This record gives sequence, C-alpha cells and structure tokens, in this order.
Amino acid sequence: MKIELIERLSKDSSQKTLLCVLDGLGGLPGPDGLTALEAASTKNLDELARLGSQGRTLPVGYGITPGSGPGHLALFGYDPLEYEIGRGVLEATGIDFVLGPDDVAARGNFCDIDVNGLIADRRAGRQSTEITANLCELLSQIEMNDIEIFVLPVREQRFVLVLRGNELSALVSETDPQIEGARPSVCEPLNGSVAAERTASLIRRWVNAAHDLLKERNQGNGILLRGWSVRPNLPSFPVIWKTRAAACAVYPMYRGVASLVGMDVINAGGNLSDQIQGMTEQWNSFDFFFLHYKYADSAGEDGDFAGKVEAIETFDRYVPELMELNPDVIVVTGDHSTPAVMSGHSWHSVPTLIAGRQVRPDEQVTFGERSAIFGELGQFPANELLPIAFAHAGKLAKFGA
Amino acid sequence: MKIELIERLSKDSSQKTLLCVLDGLGGLPGPDGLTALEAASTKNLDELARLGSQGRTLPVGYGITPGSGPGHLALFGYDPLEYEIGRGVLEATGIDFVLGPDDVAARGNFCDIDVNGLIADRRAGRQSTEITANLCELLSQIEMNDIEIFVLPVREQRFVLVLRGNELSALVSETDPQIEGARPSVCEPLNGSVAAERTASLIRRWVNAAHDLLKERNQGNGILLRGWSVRPNLPSFPVIWKTRAAACAVYPMYRGVASLVGMDVINAGGNLSDQIQGMTEQWNSFDFFFLHYKYADSAGEDGDFAGKVEAIETFDRYVPELMELNPDVIVVTGDHSTPAVMSGHSWHSVPTLIAGRQVRPDEQVTFGERSAIFGELGQFPANELLPIAFAHAGKLAKFGA
Repeated sequence: MKIELIERLSKDSSQKTLLCVLDGLGGLPGPDGLTALEAASTKNLDELARLGSQGRTLPVGYGITPGSGPGHLALFGYDPLEYEIGRGVLEATGIDFVLGPDDVAARGNFCDIDVNGLIADRRAGRQSTEITANLCELLSQIEMNDIEIFVLPVREQRFVLVLRGNELSALVSETDPQIEGARPSVCEPLNGSVAAERTASLIRRWVNAAHDLLKERNQGNGILLRGWSVRPNLPSFPVIWKTRAAACAVYPMYRGVASLVGMDVINAGGNLSDQIQGMTEQWNSFDFFFLHYKYADSAGEDGDFAGKVEAIETFDRYVPELMELNPDVIVVTGDHSTPAVMSGHSWHSVPTLIAGRQVRPDEQVTFGERSAIFGELGQFPANELLPIAFAHAGKLAKFGA
Repeated sequence: MKIELIERLSKDSSQKTLLCVLDGLGGLPGPDGLTALEAASTKNLDELARLGSQGRTLPVGYGITPGSGPGHLALFGYDPLEYEIGRGVLEATGIDFVLGPDDVAARGNFCDIDVNGLIADRRAGRQSTEITANLCELLSQIEMNDIEIFVLPVREQRFVLVLRGNELSALVSETDPQIEGARPSVCEPLNGSVAAERTASLIRRWVNAAHDLLKERNQGNGILLRGWSVRPNLPSFPVIWKTRAAACAVYPMYRGVASLVGMDVINAGGNLSDQIQGMTEQWNSFDFFFLHYKYADSAGEDGDFAGKVEAIETFDRYVPELMELNPDVIVVTGDHSTPAVMSGHSWHSVPTLIAGRQVRPDEQVTFGERSAIFGELGQFPANELLPIAFAHAGKLAKFGA
C-alpha cells in the first residue's frame, strides 16, 4: 500500500497487533526432505496455523535475495525498492548510535597494508573487538575544523565513521576496493556539488591522519571505508499508521531499523523470556509490537540445519506466553529465507501466518513452506503484510463510498 | 524486475541456464476434460515437475492475449507493456533481415483492387509465396533519391518494405484500411515533424510507383502497408545480465526477437534433434540458452487437439537428451496459451516449471495447468521468470545490507 493511501485510510483502534519476525525463517529441504520449519516440532505454531491463515511473502521481489535492512523495511510496510538504508547508516544504527538528519556515515574496516602500500588483508586478521575499540579511541583524537567526527567500534575489525556538520554529502566514493593486493582507493566526489567536493576532501584528510596514527602497527595499520550514506527520509510509522509502536529486539541492528521508522524501543534483555517480560510491562502503552527473534537466521547462516530446527522449536515453546498477552492479531513471519543448505539469505518466499478474530481460515493445520502454498493469503509482497494485519486489527477505514 | 535493478544486481556465474519455450503451451480441456499438456504422456517433464517447482506465468497481464513478440519479450525479462516491437519490425526480423537503427519497416500485403479503385481482396487470393517473391523483385526496381528501399517476400501474399536513409520516421499512417470495399488509405504524417512529412511523402510516391508497375495484373494489382515501426531500443540482454546468451530456434521470427535483445543465434537446423546438436556444440561458449519449440502452438492454431498432445509428447521424448547437457537450471514454459478449442492465442496463464539445485520443491508430480495451481512459484508475471531462474543460477547479488 502506498504511504499516501495508508495515511488516508488508517485510523485509531484499541486492538493490539503483535508482529513476530523469526529472522531467516524460510528454508529449503534438509536431510529428510523437509525444511527446518516443516521438520521442527511446533505444536503451538501449528495451532495458530489451524486457527488462522497462511501465505507466502516476497520480501523485495521475485528472485531477489534481501539484506536485513530491506527485509525489515518491507515487514514495516515500506517498499524496500523505494526506501533504501545505506550500509553506513545500518551499521551506525546497529550499535545504537543515534544519527542526526545531516550525519554522513560509513562502515569501516581496519586492514593490513604492506610495505608497498597494498592491502594484504582486508580484515586485519579479524582483529579482536577490543583492539578495534582501542584503535577507534586513538582515531577519535583526529580533529577537523567545523565538523564533529565519531569513530565507533562495531565488532571484530569493523567500525563506523560518522561525520557531523553542515554541507556534507554522502555522494563520495568508497576507499575500499574490495580486493586484496590493491591500493586503498582515494575518496572522490561523485557529483560536482560543493558539499560532495568538501566531504571528499575532509575524508581524504581524515584517512591520511588515520594512516599516520596507525602506521607503526604490524596489524590493523590501515582503514577502508564504504557504504557512505545518510539517514533515509522514512515517513514515520506511528504517524502514518496512527499507532503507538514498540520494537522489542535483542540485536541492535533490528532495534535500529525500527527506530529509523520511528518506533519506540523497549527493553528486550537478552532472550525471548526477557523480551516477553519487556512487552508485558509495556503492553498498555503501545498497540503495535515488533518482536524480533534472531536465531533461525543465525543457524541458517552457519549451515546448521539441526540448529535452525532447534531455534524454531525454542520460539514455539514461547508462543503460549505470547498468547497470554492476548494480542488481537498475531503475525508470524520472517524477513527473508535463510536455507541452512545455502548458509545464507535467499530469494525464496517466506512462510507467513496470521491469526486473530476476523481471519478467514484455510484448511492448513501445520505451519510450513508447503502448507503455506495452500494458504488463504496466497503469495504477496511482504510490504503488504502489515496492511493485512492492521486491517484485521480494525485500523483501516473503508475505501470509497 | 526493472532493468536498472537487473543491471545493479546481476553478476557473473559459471552456472548454465536453459530456457525451453514450448510455443503456445497452455490450453483448455479437450474432449476428455484434460488439457493437451495434461492429456499428453510426459514422463520426463513429470519427473522434472517432481524434482522442481511449478507456477503459472501471465505473459502480459490479466486477460491479455499476447502476440509472439510480447510473449517472448516477457520471457526474456522485459516488461512487454514498456517495450513494444512493431509489426513491421517483427516481420522483417522474422525473415532474418537485419534492421539498421534508423530503418523504417512495414508489413505489406499484395491485394486485389477493382476497376473502381476499391479493395476486392485484401490478400490477393492468398497468392503463392513464389508469385510474391517475383513481385517483390519487380517492386525493387523502384528507386528514390537519398533512400535505400528493400522489398522482401515473407509468405503467401505478405512482404516487408524497409526504408533506409536519414531523417525517416515511423510516425506515418497505414495504407491498409483493413476492410474490403474501401479504397487504400493515403499515407499521412502522424505528427508535424519534418521526418514524418518527408517519410509520408516518400511512401505516397513509392505506393504510386508500385501500383503503376502492378496495374496490368488480374490478381495482386495493389499493395497495402501497415505496422510502420523502427527497431525498439531494447537494453542488451547479455549486457544487463552479464551473460553470454544463445538462441536456438528453427523459426526465424523467434531467432529475430532473440537477436533484437542481443542474443547470439546458433545453429538450430530443422528439428529438436538438430537443435540439441547445435546447443551441444556451443555448450561451452554460452551460459544461457533459449530453446524454442514451435509445434505446440502450430497444432493449437490449427485447432488440432490431438496434434498438440503429440507435439508435447515429442518434446518430452527429447527431455533426457536436454538433461544430458547438464544445465544447472532448466525452465520449461510457453510464451502464451494456444488452446486448440480456440484455434488461436489466448489470455490464460501458462504452466511453468523450474528445476535445479536450489529450487524449493512443491508436492506436484505431474506437469500441467491444474498441477501448476498448487506449485511453489504461484502465479506471477512472465517477465519475472528469468530473474527467478537466474537467481537459482547464482546470477543475482543480495539487495541491501
């Protein structure tokens, strides 16, 4: 649904919607010919499937393998081809850094540079997060006129660089050539604007200063920057939907994407039990909850089919507690598929179910990829899932007389 | 998928994709209540259906009956509503005539004109191809300043007229009123441009000269021209997909459409056996093969249900030989439906199957219109089929971080 139509049709409702995202939920058959979701023992999700209806979402489009950013934007109702989150912004957001509207962010790597100035290891031997934290502190000493600079450790060799000031632009080139044996690229403006020229010149000076500070080191004596970006101009989720929306996610990146669209972030602790407690405490303060569960994706990324089965079974055990919150509408889906046999995200559709009072049931009694083919909801773009859910929650007015 | 997105996400892959197009594949039930595809004995296609997944493509849109041009453009990944191939261009392409970028082409008919100057028979009694060839040679004598003129026989009373020169335009009116008993129309410019004015004037002079040369004849003493068009500006298939693409088609029109999008045409001989030999010889030189098989459509057009069954069974017998080529991804589909009971193209969806390593299987074990309803791929626009196939061949990078 287009944003303009959402704004026109959305209305207040006292009903509560719970969107459960099992990251990387969809899969491909494992050793016994069943997918992880099909193989998992999920009596509670199956009961929801029996009461509700199923379908299959396409996160970005046919044949397109989504990153986590677009996968979640789609689940929040935004067309991920229209609204893009750059890598630098996603990374900054992923460490809970609150980006200002004019901040320019990049994802950085510490790397190894040999005596000839060539990149020997793009990841500096995957140096520890601790070393990266120390080096970020060191690089934070670099000062430049007029702009504020943030150098923030992420994990292992990764860090985020944020430039804050007037007249900055993200239309500058990356310094990471993305191959070893090459020289780090020189940052250049990507258009003729004053802001791009100025930003590229600031970055060149900053990179030189950084390399000066790092040059005596054996490992991590260089830096590579990519994914220059500014915060996307996303219409506010609470405003367009006239809702009070809360995000409950253990991993910062998902809190980050939710806060980029204007959701409030509530306490998620470190596991599903903590998350349910956090939602219970805030149940009366919000009418939309986004619950993120990471471990189906993690196991899939690791190629661990049994681990993915287990992660899904763990989630299933918490479904009764989620139902005790008494959501009017509950949705269970994923942001994309992560088949363990592929050890990565994939383009395949995502099994999705919805349960609630006005759901039209289908004949399926288990939740899974093959059941979902026969589901009431059919196959549809993931960014239409939220309108469907909110329709069931009484949040969409009639269109036309 | 939009062309811009294809260009952004496509990447090299060593995997090979084989697109088999059974022209006019989809149908309606025949005497026993089964469609030709359902009635045909197709153990090899059924085995692919068992291993792979099925769906249904919509070539142009709901309710739209496609011509062969748009049907194939969609299968090659182009939105057929955005890219149109004019009738003149399609006809020229169909006789292996290589159009220059500025050539203006029309489809011509020889017709019978009576003593009052009215059209008595729009098709000159469907005069033989041989007579048409002789008349085209006669009309090739007409010379005009500054432009080159090609008059080329097609089949029966049909021919192609191509004008080559500077400042020509296809924005001129047709001379074929498409009814008998009317006078041939006079060619007029369709806008006020110098090129359209000039082209219309050249065409009027050419038509008068042609009628002078033909006036003594009893049959075929006139000509009618329609479908003025120039080569469409189609983004190059090999460039946008970063692939080496080969077309293997017995009928020239399909070679023509493939070459309009930039595919290489390889030796197809006169039948499936020759085609497979041609592909075998070129297997290492390309990573995408378009194999065209005409006879399902021909039988459908003739209203010959049994013939269509037989044509599909013939194709099925060659499937093992195709599989010996060892494609990583194989797709079997049609460019449109041609139900024998309609003796023509139709708007119905087209049963489609895909098999390969990362295909998510469904529960279907036979290939057919009704099986495809329950397939993993669902119902989708035909121009999304190639992105799906190429995703399975590892040719599409992840979208977003």
